Amino acid sequence: MELLKEYILNNGKAIGSKILKVDSFLNHQIDPVLMMKMGEEFKKRFQGVEINKILTVEASGIAIGLAAAYAFNVPLVFAKKKVPSTMAEFYTTKVFSFTKNKDYTICVGKDFLEPHDKVLIIDDFLAMGNAVLGLKELVEQAGAEVMGVGIAVTKGFQGGEKLLLNSGLRVESLAVVDSLENGEINFR
Amino acid sequence: MELLKEYILNNGKAIGSKILKVDSFLNHQIDPVLMMKMGEEFKKRFQGVEINKILTVEASGIAIGLAAAYAFNVPLVFAKKKVPSTMAEFYTTKVFSFTKNKDYTICVGKDFLEPHDKVLIIDDFLAMGNAVLGLKELVEQAGAEVMGVGIAVTKGFQGGEKLLLNSGLRVESLAVVDSLENGEINFR
Repeated sequence: MELLKEYILNNGKAIGSKILKVDSFLNHQIDPVLMMKMGEEFKKRFQGVEINKILTVEASGIAIGLAAAYAFNVPLVFAKKKVPSTMAEFYTTKVFSFTKNKDYTICVGKDFLEPHDKVLIIDDFLAMGNAVLGLKELVEQAGAEVMGVGIAVTKGFQGGEKLLLNSGLRVESLAVVDSLENGEINFR
Repeated sequence: MELLKEYILNNGKAIGSKILKVDSFLNHQIDPVLMMKMGEEFKKRFQGVEINKILTVEASGIAIGLAAAYAFNVPLVFAKKKVPSTMAEFYTTKVFSFTKNKDYTICVGKDFLEPHDKVLIIDDFLAMGNAVLGLKELVEQAGAEVMGVGIAVTKGFQGGEKLLLNSGLRVESLAVVDSLENGEINFR
């Protein structure tokens, strides 16, 4: 998606060879017009695919998840990282965070994932792929089906994209960064 | 806002006299059309007020914050509850959570709140008011100005609304619940 690439080139920052900072428009400060356009782009990419629910994980997936949900005109569900005290029954799994070098738990209330659901998983970043695999696990616990994965920015030089493709998922990335070197951002 | 009240009556659930569960459309599963309409309603309520930034706090403020930011056509900034490892300089304060009976920290990168900013604070729920006061504190640390507070659901029987009004803030709530009794939801 050319608009997103422009934003990344103009406002993103490569820190070393692994970190891409996009917090001025994607995951701390958010450009709402860009966000809604990314939602529409996912709708185009998954045209003809039966989808009745968008699933993401808090916190930075929520904005792009809402944009996608609005474009598809279906509900957004965001997995929580802590079990709310008022939630009686839920699907849950553990996700390993490479950034923090520890496991965290994600959960979705049983009312919000049902066997008939055709789910599109959305997230802002794809690095090692563990968050998406955790969301896929929740969908499968519910007996529902993952129809695809939509990602704003994929770091193509980390293992996540390959892992998801190998597990049979269709992955649509709006921008794939294949390397970060000396402050330079190189797209696929 | 009539539409929101209908959603609350049809899909909300009073648990005891204090908890209002709205997780089927507001803060776990999200109805994107309702969300975007709430954003437009804030825009109407604050017509004529100079606002160049929306500020909220992760996680459940993000969706309604994005909806408001889109309606106002200004950036959304969401305060984080943990300091990201890549964030060098930030404003920070502590917020006491009555639900969890402990303090948590919120922070915003210094790049994203500037002295010239005219900020509208948005959140999904107003109960005791501490989260909003924390956000106000961050705005003031930056030398910026809070132009108002927009809330989806205010629990009018808790102290937050009064606290914010007494501190001189303009508060616009899309629905005010004045009591929860025997499973009954009573609006102001």
